[in-house]
Amino acid sequence: MMKLASVRYGSRDRLGVLKDDGAITLLDAFDSMRDLIRSGEDPSRFESRTTVPACEVDWRPPIRHPGKICCVAMNNSASNARKISAPDHPAYFLKPSSCLVGHRHPIRVRPYYGSVHPEPELAVVIGRRMKDVDAADAPGYVFGYTIMNDVTGNGMRAEDMFHYWALYANPARPGELLRREQHLSYAARYKGTDTFGCLGPVIATADGIPDPDDLDVTCRVGGETIAEDSTRYYNYKVAEILSFLSQFQTLEPGDIVSCGTAFRPSEKRTSIHHANFQSVGGPVEVTIAGIGTLVNPVEIEERPIGKWRLP
Amino acid sequence: MMKLASVRYGSRDRLGVLKDDGAITLLDAFDSMRDLIRSGEDPSRFESRTTVPACEVDWRPPIRHPGKICCVAMNNSASNARKISAPDHPAYFLKPSSCLVGHRHPIRVRPYYGSVHPEPELAVVIGRRMKDVDAADAPGYVFGYTIMNDVTGNGMRAEDMFHYWALYANPARPGELLRREQHLSYAARYKGTDTFGCLGPVIATADGIPDPDDLDVTCRVGGETIAEDSTRYYNYKVAEILSFLSQFQTLEPGDIVSCGTAFRPSEKRTSIHHANFQSVGGPVEVTIAGIGTLVNPVEIEERPIGKWRLP
Repeated sequence: MMKLASVRYGSRDRLGVLKDDGAITLLDAFDSMRDLIRSGEDPSRFESRTTVPACEVDWRPPIRHPGKICCVAMNNSASNARKISAPDHPAYFLKPSSCLVGHRHPIRVRPYYGSVHPEPELAVVIGRRMKDVDAADAPGYVFGYTIMNDVTGNGMRAEDMFHYWALYANPARPGELLRREQHLSYAARYKGTDTFGCLGPVIATADGIPDPDDLDVTCRVGGETIAEDSTRYYNYKVAEILSFLSQFQTLEPGDIVSCGTAFRPSEKRTSIHHANFQSVGGPVEVTIAGIGTLVNPVEIEERPIGKWRLP
Repeated sequence: MMKLASVRYGSRDRLGVLKDDGAITLLDAFDSMRDLIRSGEDPSRFESRTTVPACEVDWRPPIRHPGKICCVAMNNSASNARKISAPDHPAYFLKPSSCLVGHRHPIRVRPYYGSVHPEPELAVVIGRRMKDVDAADAPGYVFGYTIMNDVTGNGMRAEDMFHYWALYANPARPGELLRREQHLSYAARYKGTDTFGCLGPVIATADGIPDPDDLDVTCRVGGETIAEDSTRYYNYKVAEILSFLSQFQTLEPGDIVSCGTAFRPSEKRTSIHHANFQSVGGPVEVTIAGIGTLVNPVEIEERPIGKWRLP
């Protein structure tokens, strides 16, 4: 098993291997994780003799520009009791690569965002092009695992909802339309705002994570533990998620699939929803067994929204 | 004004300029539109002497791998009367670059997708890095305009909804949570399935589109006109959309912002929602004045969903 990182060192983007002693060995031949994954090569072949202390690198998201980032919604069995009606398959949204920040980089929050909180998640890094793959075969397409803090703006979420009369064709009467009362909501803003995707610090290669469906996850905010959970409480297993998604959209090398929030509260705190960054300071630390700990400070930017309406 | 295309010709990805006579002049120096846009160079400097007939190229999406594709929801004033409650700003979702297909490439629909229909839209191609830009300045960040057929799976949309008790921190009593009945829906599947993003055929550079807020849009399916509309009926103007988005997420060169569906029905047909590709054959043609016509056939793939549950 290797722990692979994307780092900036000496004003250059490099790949590195995080060693048990905390040092990073730089890789030759590839500067982009996506290129390394696409090559199908064994990363250990490219380890150089250059070792640098972890404190001297600038941590980037392990994949700097994933083709897509799919995130499964409401996959924690702890939320099942709160569901009145729900799909019987994984439902998911996308985060843009522009929202990603690496380990140690700040989550920046502006007053006009409203409430913003962390969501600790196991994220899969796709290794091979994956389309129409059965769940039993899905593990063979995984390059490795990393940590996603799926930062979420609940204040914006409450704003970006529509309650309206949707139109559907009437199957019984061609040419007629049915009106159906419907609620829709849109996630691109509350899930995709800049710095709302903390990713890293490393990718643990798949050979080191024999059972991704049984990993302990903890989340601390400002030093206090607010979630103690495990991926074994996900409704859908990692292989099921990957297989389901692949029946609809092709997953490509370097794509990220984040498997849902591990939010079971610890004894001390009742919920991640209390960790509103507008009032609760950071840093946010997400730890997943076998991968590591992703740490991000929180910064408030006292900036008002700009003039987006034309006169 | 130039009409720029990404094409495959002679087993190589090339950029080209579509001429008024229908021929394509190939560009030297750049094979990727995103690289050309990032360079800030005038494309006309790189026109080669090689001209090929349009029928001999394989049309790719003009930007093959945009960093992100933001799409504004419910931006047509024709839908305002159906809204019971709605945001007072643009709400948007993301499409993944993996769903894009170019001009003439098929939209592939499987029986298990349920109802699927076209949505004709004006799409902006971002020219310069754009963050916190006021609406008055937004036009200066536009590289050009293209056509998006934002193919939508209404059947999947109806499946990917949650009705549940959401948790919010109680502002009055720290440590307590409020339960709020809420509806959420997730768009990644119904908007992002493979081939659900038809883009092209060309990018009309911004100098050729002096007023993007007054462009006629028509959509034909199987030869029949199903929508005759104009971008002047958008609730939010192009500059307002770009400015609003830029207050939350950085827009980068080559990013796509699709401005909402132009769906006012023609006299003959009542709605785009009748153009369900499960029963209505293609091709789908979307025309926007000053840009061109995007044509995509429809193919039904008789494939059942794979075994995505583990035993």
